[in-house]
Amino acid sequence: MSDLSAVKAALKSQQIETPSWAYGNSGTRFKVFTQAGVPRDPYEKLDDAARVHAATGAAPVVALHIPWDRVDDYAALARYAEERGLRLGAINSNVFQDDDYKLGSVTNPDPRVRRKAVAHLLECVDIMDATGSRDLKLWFSDGTNYPGQDDVVARQDRLAEALAEVYGRLGEGQRMLLEYKLFEPAFYTTDVPDWGTAYAHCLRLGDKAQVVVDTGHHAPGTNIEFIVAFLLREQKLGGFDFNSRFYADDDLMVGAADPFQLFRIMHEVAKNGGLAPEAGVAFMLDQCHNIEAKIPAIIRSVMNVQEATAKALLIDAQALASAQRSGDVLEANAVLMDAFNTDVRPLLREVREELGIDPDPVAAHRASGWQERIAAERVGGTQAGWGA
Amino acid sequence: MSDLSAVKAALKSQQIETPSWAYGNSGTRFKVFTQAGVPRDPYEKLDDAARVHAATGAAPVVALHIPWDRVDDYAALARYAEERGLRLGAINSNVFQDDDYKLGSVTNPDPRVRRKAVAHLLECVDIMDATGSRDLKLWFSDGTNYPGQDDVVARQDRLAEALAEVYGRLGEGQRMLLEYKLFEPAFYTTDVPDWGTAYAHCLRLGDKAQVVVDTGHHAPGTNIEFIVAFLLREQKLGGFDFNSRFYADDDLMVGAADPFQLFRIMHEVAKNGGLAPEAGVAFMLDQCHNIEAKIPAIIRSVMNVQEATAKALLIDAQALASAQRSGDVLEANAVLMDAFNTDVRPLLREVREELGIDPDPVAAHRASGWQERIAAERVGGTQAGWGA
Amino acid sequence: MSDLSAVKAALKSQQIETPSWAYGNSGTRFKVFTQAGVPRDPYEKLDDAARVHAATGAAPVVALHIPWDRVDDYAALARYAEERGLRLGAINSNVFQDDDYKLGSVTNPDPRVRRKAVAHLLECVDIMDATGSRDLKLWFSDGTNYPGQDDVVARQDRLAEALAEVYGRLGEGQRMLLEYKLFEPAFYTTDVPDWGTAYAHCLRLGDKAQVVVDTGHHAPGTNIEFIVAFLLREQKLGGFDFNSRFYADDDLMVGAADPFQLFRIMHEVAKNGGLAPEAGVAFMLDQCHNIEAKIPAIIRSVMNVQEATAKALLIDAQALASAQRSGDVLEANAVLMDAFNTDVRPLLREVREELGIDPDPVAAHRASGWQERIAAERVGGTQAGWGA
Amino acid sequence: MSDLSAVKAALKSQQIETPSWAYGNSGTRFKVFTQAGVPRDPYEKLDDAARVHAATGAAPVVALHIPWDRVDDYAALARYAEERGLRLGAINSNVFQDDDYKLGSVTNPDPRVRRKAVAHLLECVDIMDATGSRDLKLWFSDGTNYPGQDDVVARQDRLAEALAEVYGRLGEGQRMLLEYKLFEPAFYTTDVPDWGTAYAHCLRLGDKAQVVVDTGHHAPGTNIEFIVAFLLREQKLGGFDFNSRFYADDDLMVGAADPFQLFRIMHEVAKNGGLAPEAGVAFMLDQCHNIEAKIPAIIRSVMNVQEATAKALLIDAQALASAQRSGDVLEANAVLMDAFNTDVRPLLREVREELGIDPDPVAAHRASGWQERIAAERVGGTQAGWGA
Repeated sequence: MSDLSAVKAALKSQQIETPSWAYGNSGTRFKVFTQAGVPRDPYEKLDDAARVHAATGAAPVVALHIPWDRVDDYAALARYAEERGLRLGAINSNVFQDDDYKLGSVTNPDPRVRRKAVAHLLECVDIMDATGSRDLKLWFSDGTNYPGQDDVVARQDRLAEALAEVYGRLGEGQRMLLEYKLFEPAFYTTDVPDWGTAYAHCLRLGDKAQVVVDTGHHAPGTNIEFIVAFLLREQKLGGFDFNSRFYADDDLMVGAADPFQLFRIMHEVAKNGGLAPEAGVAFMLDQCHNIEAKIPAIIRSVMNVQEATAKALLIDAQALASAQRSGDVLEANAVLMDAFNTDVRPLLREVREELGIDPDPVAAHRASGWQERIAAERVGGTQAGWGA
Repeated sequence: MSDLSAVKAALKSQQIETPSWAYGNSGTRFKVFTQAGVPRDPYEKLDDAARVHAATGAAPVVALHIPWDRVDDYAALARYAEERGLRLGAINSNVFQDDDYKLGSVTNPDPRVRRKAVAHLLECVDIMDATGSRDLKLWFSDGTNYPGQDDVVARQDRLAEALAEVYGRLGEGQRMLLEYKLFEPAFYTTDVPDWGTAYAHCLRLGDKAQVVVDTGHHAPGTNIEFIVAFLLREQKLGGFDFNSRFYADDDLMVGAADPFQLFRIMHEVAKNGGLAPEAGVAFMLDQCHNIEAKIPAIIRSVMNVQEATAKALLIDAQALASAQRSGDVLEANAVLMDAFNTDVRPLLREVREELGIDPDPVAAHRASGWQERIAAERVGGTQAGWGA
Repeated sequence: MSDLSAVKAALKSQQIETPSWAYGNSGTRFKVFTQAGVPRDPYEKLDDAARVHAATGAAPVVALHIPWDRVDDYAALARYAEERGLRLGAINSNVFQDDDYKLGSVTNPDPRVRRKAVAHLLECVDIMDATGSRDLKLWFSDGTNYPGQDDVVARQDRLAEALAEVYGRLGEGQRMLLEYKLFEPAFYTTDVPDWGTAYAHCLRLGDKAQVVVDTGHHAPGTNIEFIVAFLLREQKLGGFDFNSRFYADDDLMVGAADPFQLFRIMHEVAKNGGLAPEAGVAFMLDQCHNIEAKIPAIIRSVMNVQEATAKALLIDAQALASAQRSGDVLEANAVLMDAFNTDVRPLLREVREELGIDPDPVAAHRASGWQERIAAERVGGTQAGWGA
Repeated sequence: MSDLSAVKAALKSQQIETPSWAYGNSGTRFKVFTQAGVPRDPYEKLDDAARVHAATGAAPVVALHIPWDRVDDYAALARYAEERGLRLGAINSNVFQDDDYKLGSVTNPDPRVRRKAVAHLLECVDIMDATGSRDLKLWFSDGTNYPGQDDVVARQDRLAEALAEVYGRLGEGQRMLLEYKLFEPAFYTTDVPDWGTAYAHCLRLGDKAQVVVDTGHHAPGTNIEFIVAFLLREQKLGGFDFNSRFYADDDLMVGAADPFQLFRIMHEVAKNGGLAPEAGVAFMLDQCHNIEAKIPAIIRSVMNVQEATAKALLIDAQALASAQRSGDVLEANAVLMDAFNTDVRPLLREVREELGIDPDPVAAHRASGWQERIAAERVGGTQAGWGA
């Protein structure tokens, strides 16, 4: 895409969805470190998300997590968002934090627990109806820790049954996004461990079921951009949970561990039509800012996605295709690297200026005094976190 | 399966397919070490395979690799096998050892090379017609080494086109087995890198297309038995390429690196009907005996599969299901481990005695004098290897 | 060691150290599932540990974790242990659960935090003086999450300084055991990430500093038994933190994920003198029983170590050495596998009977009614866990 | 290092050592694809290396591999190099391609083979005397494929003995560089599998023994820059074998798989004094250009190292240290990323122009007609490769 105005237009139209839980406290099993000014409820999370959007102009959607974001009136929450220039995005279900789910939720050997889990998923669709959300995002921690603990195939049967019931409940324009994950918290088997499993279930369910790629959920050495390209070819890529990792599901800021990988992913997205709004690819963050300041970390993450996208858009597609056709390995690679090695920050500054916002989102946010204000005002109450 | 006679019957009916190339020289990129007595042609490979079957009573099928096993008269080769109590098994294609395939075979950007590759695959089906082989086994080294080198999606299109053409050529009772591999020899993308990709293609092709699981072709941390169970549930498991690995595709003797994993795999096979002949699961070896004596290594490998199968058959299925249903994690695991910890070697000695063969295959082979004989007789000529 | 009485004697003399924290609640970052009857204080943990020792006859030592096991009178706690046939083992420091340690403890850029951390480590030595413990076990969560976050070399300097101060405080007969870990909770760098780093520090410190091998703390593909053999050759193996893992630091029951690996580790230990009491190798468990019953899981873990040890002791050392000398790869491997494939459970039943305990520890514990008793009696209060 | 003239001076003084074998054919165990114009002897390799240096101005040193580069008169070879503006670098030993080394070289159980291997290493020092090379680079393929195959500790003893003998033969100003590698071609144990093992041996040997870091020789998830920093702190970093990898030891062009990692490595080198000539860090390439044109690939690799170095030199050291001291995680990371995100290609064009060479090495080489010339002239004879 050599036309700079088209590149800019694409960048201006890209929307990053930030997760409500990234504004709250998080941590590892060893320790959750609290931070001053962390929101105490979904409304305060939206206040923070509005700052991210104000600073970047690119983050107008906020994903919710139920029950962490449970409120009495979801329509009111949606209006609160709208008043701040935001809209509510994916509803993320949670069937892993109840004692009943120790041995699984929808795949639990106990039918009572399965029914309870399905009821929660159905409730999430109710919430979607109220918030106007398009996407139900399903991640299951279900699995086993020890060989023999449960029957792998029986669990697939239970999973299929639960998914079918929830799928049947989806309304017009609603989608089910199925996420896969190699391991954690289950350590021996996970019931949806890889894209192939998620794909097979989605295929059987129908067009409204799509796969979500969380960039931290793969085995070492997995070529994520291959999966992205394959799913786009199959029209089964529902979206991303962006983050980055050095080892496991580290949930660091996207682009922080391997910016070249993020660029390669965005190249496959861009090349295969995934940036077009009608493709329906949701660009969501799913991160844990355990030790760094949360709002600035989210701003930085949005910027990292934008920079990778910009570089992907700058690839000389004709030169690339020509080198590929002629089998010129080095030239084809050089065309790609030429885009990656370009400093796109000036271009993104321009884009922001054209949008009427500060070209430097991090500095703008720092200057806004927001952090000092929330640290002073949000005193007392219970800070939001993974458990609340 | 607590009925010992049923266990024995299952063990007696299990057939392991040994690969012709395992009798020849092999090695790493650093060095191929030659061994005395290695076969010079496919007939001598069958002579060696007959010794493995004589010693174990469980290895009556021999897979061929084209062009390494190219002969003028395949029907004559099949008769030669039959006279030795063997039959010819899967025909393995080779579209990776010609200079033309430097940038791929069926996915090569050059249509001339793709046609050449497809022609070879079609020739393999011709050979199947002559040998009476059921299975065409396809492994593609196709992929890229550098980001940008070629178009991931275009390569999938080319792959799908080639597979469809070859699939259309299959006769009654013939199957196409599609193998996947994480990496090597391609280092950036592989065109069939994981079971999901192989599955998606096989699904589109039809019932005669099945996935092959090579136990050495996964990313670290991949739960192979999950894949096995999943594919059996989907009726898409065509067979195994057994071997073992500590790091990458080490191609060591199956069961040598992680005997517990092999047991878990055979548990899923046995539990989900994969041992029944009508399931059509091919139990093939695909190994490289770089530094150890070849025939004894293959005998040991056959025994390792038998021991894992025996242990899997000894699992108390009722006790396991009961513990699983009640959510007793430790008891369910204990039922499984009880079978694994059992020494099944006496049982297998009995099975062999009932088959009328020596209970100790390794000792019997050593005592046979075969190794001394081939070392003395197979002098001159060119030893078989990966390149011949 | 073909002499059966010597094998039995070795098995009878092996002592497994169980960790106080394994009796309490644990979990992942997603959820801690509570269990009925979990101890509320260090005394109740010792009561449970006494049951493990009663059932196995092999677990007379209990490691403490400070501050989780903080009491007013450590000498009284030691007497309490002694009255139950136990003694207190390694003192495990904790410099990762205070808000001050967000960016590190002994390697924190802030000297105030470093002093606080060192003070805690020195306090642990004070506790050792009171409990009569030999070993101070140091595991640091210190590291960084993002490239650039801190200076790798400066952190090593701070680490060296802290270790030297604590080392200087050790009394006669006391040791410092330094543990390494690839990652978690730090995701980019860890200050003691591998055995080489731990070894280098211990070498500089002196003979009282030894390396601890936690079997879950390595990169995929790491050959742990090589490290064990190397450290024994260097007289730098202080002990083990046993557990097992499929992916990361899963902290499952030792021997549950890869019993063959555990056997290979115990082979290196046995072959290289590590079972002799004077070698000073501590056989500790470090596990999290997130979903399974805790006491039976610990009993099973002790048994798994014993079974691996028994198999290692049954290796025909002469036959092995002979095959190795002659370069007979298959025979040497077969000698090893022969021991591994042996069912040693009858031998261990005999050993237990000779010790005057029930040959079936799991059944004996179940029959004891202890679980029902603690579930009934330990009501109210706060269950012990990682945070208490 | 904010002073641009100092940055340029550092870039001008950096010397990359190219390996003679990268100019010859290479491949995987599956296939070696030949290329037109590949050298037939060491002299032609030097001719090609001279083109790389002419194009880059940064590659004046060429490493040799014995016996692949065996000539009658090494002094004459050295003069040949000198006449082309080159000098001969590290002498790489080869004790892995003789049938005698099937079970190891210096660690082989057979003392005859060990003596043969040591004799080769000593011969390499003789060659160093003739070529004026400073470094003897030792990589051992020694290891085992199967558990039990040999005695891990005995092999360390043999290794230590061999290293000591060779070390004792080193002359004034000569060094021994010991390389480690996780696996391949050995699959169960490798005798020098990690930096810790290499470090421990080097420490015992003395100051002339230094560790070499091959960037492709680690387990997944290993933080290589940590090792680099640690070895520099210990004054034990002898140099690099640069290449890049996605999975195993892929030997792709350095910087091609993870340019951010290469930048982080060069940051640790630069920050910790490793760029200073007196630090003695050798920046060697060790790559296999299996499918891409060799000379342009080596030129690109040299440029990739330069670009990573340039970015590392552009880091604002004061700002970084300040953010680190104050515990500002995001700011410290941002300082690092700011340098990484800078497009340093204009700076390197300037550097080249100041050196009087073409600012675009790839284009300059292409325009030189060298590839056409060698393709036309180097006809007949045997192309150089790993076996010649």
